[in-house]
Formats: sequence, C-alpha cells, structure tokens
Amino acid sequence: MKYKDSGVNIEKAKRAKGAMIAHVKSTWTPEVLSGPGAFGGMYSLAGYRDPVLVSSVDGVGTKLIVARMAGRFDTVGQDLVNHCVNDILVQGARPLFFLDYIASGSLDPGVVTSLVEGMAIACRTHRCALIGGETAEMPDVYQGEDFDLAGCIIGVVEREDIVNGTKVAPGDRVIALPSNGLHTNGYSLARKIVFDELQLGVGDFVDDLGCTVADALLTVHVSYLDAFTKISEVAKVKAMAHITGGGIKDNFERVLPGACDARIRKGTWPALEVFDFLGKRGKVEESEMYQVFNMGVGMILVVTAADEKKILSSLGGEMNIYSIGEIVAGRGSVILS
Amino acid sequence: MKYKDSGVNIEKAKRAKGAMIAHVKSTWTPEVLSGPGAFGGMYSLAGYRDPVLVSSVDGVGTKLIVARMAGRFDTVGQDLVNHCVNDILVQGARPLFFLDYIASGSLDPGVVTSLVEGMAIACRTHRCALIGGETAEMPDVYQGEDFDLAGCIIGVVEREDIVNGTKVAPGDRVIALPSNGLHTNGYSLARKIVFDELQLGVGDFVDDLGCTVADALLTVHVSYLDAFTKISEVAKVKAMAHITGGGIKDNFERVLPGACDARIRKGTWPALEVFDFLGKRGKVEESEMYQVFNMGVGMILVVTAADEKKILSSLGGEMNIYSIGEIVAGRGSVILS
Repeated sequence: MKYKDSGVNIEKAKRAKGAMIAHVKSTWTPEVLSGPGAFGGMYSLAGYRDPVLVSSVDGVGTKLIVARMAGRFDTVGQDLVNHCVNDILVQGARPLFFLDYIASGSLDPGVVTSLVEGMAIACRTHRCALIGGETAEMPDVYQGEDFDLAGCIIGVVEREDIVNGTKVAPGDRVIALPSNGLHTNGYSLARKIVFDELQLGVGDFVDDLGCTVADALLTVHVSYLDAFTKISEVAKVKAMAHITGGGIKDNFERVLPGACDARIRKGTWPALEVFDFLGKRGKVEESEMYQVFNMGVGMILVVTAADEKKILSSLGGEMNIYSIGEIVAGRGSVILS
Repeated sequence: MKYKDSGVNIEKAKRAKGAMIAHVKSTWTPEVLSGPGAFGGMYSLAGYRDPVLVSSVDGVGTKLIVARMAGRFDTVGQDLVNHCVNDILVQGARPLFFLDYIASGSLDPGVVTSLVEGMAIACRTHRCALIGGETAEMPDVYQGEDFDLAGCIIGVVEREDIVNGTKVAPGDRVIALPSNGLHTNGYSLARKIVFDELQLGVGDFVDDLGCTVADALLTVHVSYLDAFTKISEVAKVKAMAHITGGGIKDNFERVLPGACDARIRKGTWPALEVFDFLGKRGKVEESEMYQVFNMGVGMILVVTAADEKKILSSLGGEMNIYSIGEIVAGRGSVILS
C-alpha cells in the first residue's frame, strides 16, 4: 500500500507549495530572516522600546462557501488578512507578520494558489509578512470540494500606545467607520436567505443591490489601518471595537468600561442596501439583524468631544466617518435607539 | 428567520467559551496583558537584547478522526502544541504564546472544552500562554461531527542563538531523539491499514503492540524542549530537524547545507513496534514507510564529534539519545542505509 492510496498526495502538495511561493515572498520585508521551507518563520523585532505583541486568529466562516459557489478564490484571502488586521488594530497594534492554515480533503493547487495570492495582496498593503503556513490534506474530515482557511496575525504596539478603553468617560463621543457589506460575518444566515429561501444563484443580478449576488456577498472586508493611522495623527483614540459576529452591541461592549454606557443613534450612518435586502426579503427582525450583521458599521472609535471635532474637521473631507453617539454614565452597556 | 435557523447558535458558542476559560487562564504567565474576550491577545516582550520571533502554524491532521472514533479529545490538543513547540525549537526558539482555531459544523461544548484542556496542559508544561483562539461554527463546510483543530505558536530566540545549520560541516555527528509513535503524521495511511484493511476497531487490543489501537494511535506527540535545554547546556547544537510528514530524509534535508550530505545508518536507534506492525500488516514498502512516518526518530540534531561525546557521556544516562550517523561532503542529501 502507498500513502497515495489513502488520499494524501505529497507530490501534489509540493507542487501547490511551489506555485504559491512567489506570492508569499512578495510580502517579505527585511525583518524576515527565514527562507521558504523553514520549520519556523523568523522575524527580527528590533527597534522597539517596550514592545507588546498583539495577536489574533480567525477564519472567514462560510463566506468560503460563497467563494466556492462563485469560483472566485482571490478575495477570501484578503478578507481573512483584513479581518485579522482590524482585530489587533483595536488595541492600537500594527501588523508584523501572518501565518495561514488551509485544509481540504483533496488539495486543488489552483484554489490554494488563489487563496494565497489574496492573502499576499492584503499582506503587502499592510507591510505584513506572510511568514508561515500549513497546507493540510485531510481526506475524511473535509468532503468533496470543502476546505477551510484560517490565519493568525502578530502585530506590535509600544506599551504606552496601547488602546484599551480604560480612559473612556462620560461625555466622550462615539464615531463609526463604515463597512462595505457583510465583511466576514453572518454568512450562514445570508446564504440561507439568498440561496435557500429566495433561490437565487451566485451569478444572478439583483436590481435592489445593483450587482450580482456574488459581487454583493464577496465584497472584500475593509481594513481600517490607514484610517486609524490618519486619525491617530490628529487625535487620541481611547477605545476601538471591530464589528464582527455579535454586531455593534456585543463587540462594542467588549471594550467599554463597566461604569459607562454607550448611546448609539441608528440612522446616523448610511444604511447599506445589502442589509435592507437581507432583512426585508429574509423576514429577519431588526434586533436579530443588529446581532448578526455589522449593519454598516465596520469599526467604532471613542474619542473626546474635542477630538471628535478635530477629526471631523480635518479628515471629514477625505474619509467617510460618522458621529453616531456618546458615552454616558452606566453599566457597560451599548444602547441602540 | 433567525440566525439559529441557519445552524449557527451564538448562545451555545458563548457557553462553550465560558467552559474553556478556566483552562485558558491556567496557562497565562505575567507577560499576558489582555483579559479574556479581548480582540487581540497582548503579550509583553520585555528583556530581550535582539529578539527574533519564530512562529509556526499546524494542525493535527487525521489523528483527529482517531480521537473522534475513540471519543478521547484531551490528547490531540497536546499533540498540536507539542508539534508546534518542536517546529520552532528547530531554530532554537522557546515558546511564548499559542493561539488555536477550532472549527466544526455544530459546536459540541464538551468536545471543545476537552480540546482546549489538552492544549492548556501542554501550554503550561512549556510556560506558553494560550492567548487567543477562534471557535468557528460552519455548517455546510463541516459535516456531522467533523471538526478541525489548528494552532499557531510564537516563540523567541536571541539572534546570536539561532540554530540554522549554516555551520554544519563534514565530520559532524547526527544524533536522534526518539519518537514514541506516529506523533501527528501518516494518519491517513495508518487509518487505512488499521481500520479499512485489517478491520480493527479503536478499542481492539493488538497483541503485537501490547495495547489497544486507540492507545497506539493516540500516544501524545513528544515535545523536545526539555531535552534540547539540557543538551544546550553541554553542547552547541548546529542544526535540528523535526521529523514530521516527509520523514527523516525530507525534513533533515530542509536544514542541511548544500555542500554536505548526512549518512544515517538504520538500526542505530530502537525500532517502534507500531511501525513494524503497520509496515508488515499493511504491506507498505520500507522506502514508503520512511517517507510517511518518523520511524522512531522524533528530532535530529547535528553537533561536532567532540560535542557528541560530551552529550552522550553527560546525558546518555538520563535520556534516550542515539548516535545515528555523520555529516560528509556532498550535495545536501540525506542518505539512509
């Protein structure tokens, strides 16, 4: 008997790795000390006074299934990296490097290469080195064309620059950076509505959305690193929340001090048509919509009232940014009204 | 429609997270600055002169399926952490922190808690903080009770202490630290032989092995951090290779300089019964066995001849360590004879 007979093809895995290496290398910064094929990725962390490493691991959920239905594999890698960049940005950290995990029942070298290409695009944008990865072939765990994609980001922030919400106080203002769609959350519900209930196909054009189902559902998760960098130059950000699964309330409450509430007024930021469409056509209650989806808010920031004015006056012209509420004395709750 | 209708249960995910948090916290060292529920895990990296971060991502392959068949979920988490510890140890790095990714079609809180408990056990042993994780519920990607487990380790080594093989030279010696079984590689082939060909059940006692199939196949992957620490106190390790998928040859060649060959003599380390059993009963050719399995060698180290003597005389009594070959002039090949 041979290993191939068990459904694992080492030679095919080697070919897939060969095809992805140019994408991987395109992300490498001078800090990367290891070559391809090293057991561990090596990254030199020189030049920091009191470095705090900030890390996060994530997947892209069942957005993968939409990608597979559409045969479009170059965007979910960007989703994954951007999602992770945002998760560590919440604490003020900038990305250093990224590692990915791709698992499937039977490796499709073309799919793997597209996934890695997408990650490499987003990594280059963020000066984040794609330093390691695992491509696993697991027959009997993944069926047919099923596969999964996950990734881990490591970033750094100087200890004095950590953003952690402790200085949030009544009178502070809540500002929102808009999302451009579902980002990477709520896809199981969205798929059920769009494909099961409405019986749409990924290629179908939807008048309400002005685009195909695939275009609406595969829009790439926005990264807020650039926006945060610009905002940090004019103001001190006290707290940040990345709006993912659980929606505005659950995610914002993760960074709100126990003695403060946040009052957020719906309608102070632009609604996205995709959420109107999913809510109405899927007959999903509004409260449920706000728990599952980001509802148009990708990132929330808390700043002083004075800083809010500065941000809006100096950056309001060049970026979309919305004043959506304020901090009041309370018990750590987010109140949407 | 509700999110639950799509197969995703946010409340159940919250309960699973609640159950695992004590295990996670048991691994936290004073360097961990974030609390549970933070967007990113924060780890203070103070006290290094010229730190190089070394990272690796991995899964446990289809050893997961054996765990599921046996209903034993507390060992694969240890496998995963120990595998990752070894992968960065190869470059001389010690673990700092770990992040895990657990994905399934429908979360089983008991299984998730056992997986995390296993990771926590191994993390505590290595003073490695389990600092972050993602528990994803992905109906339609994972079928039935299928799930996947992956993890990412980040360690550190002072730049001057990096082990990278560049000083390996003819006359150096190759020593082996033994494995205790399959570790986490070759499970697709092993399962095919044991369950499909031989029609054994996980609970069946195998006389040749002196234990049940489950015990033989779920033996926890050995970590070599302690052994390396002791060896480093008496000798300078020039190169290391963790023997995983691809076997002794493929893995050792990853760290061998282009002008050197390694000559390894089979039979200079103890054979493990599990490989005899799989090879004979599965009718797998020996060359195939050596490419798929570690064949009893978990970690390979290269040292000078003088250092080999020192290691064997001072540590040979307390740990299993074998002289298995030497470095000669060549072209970067490992020759097993």
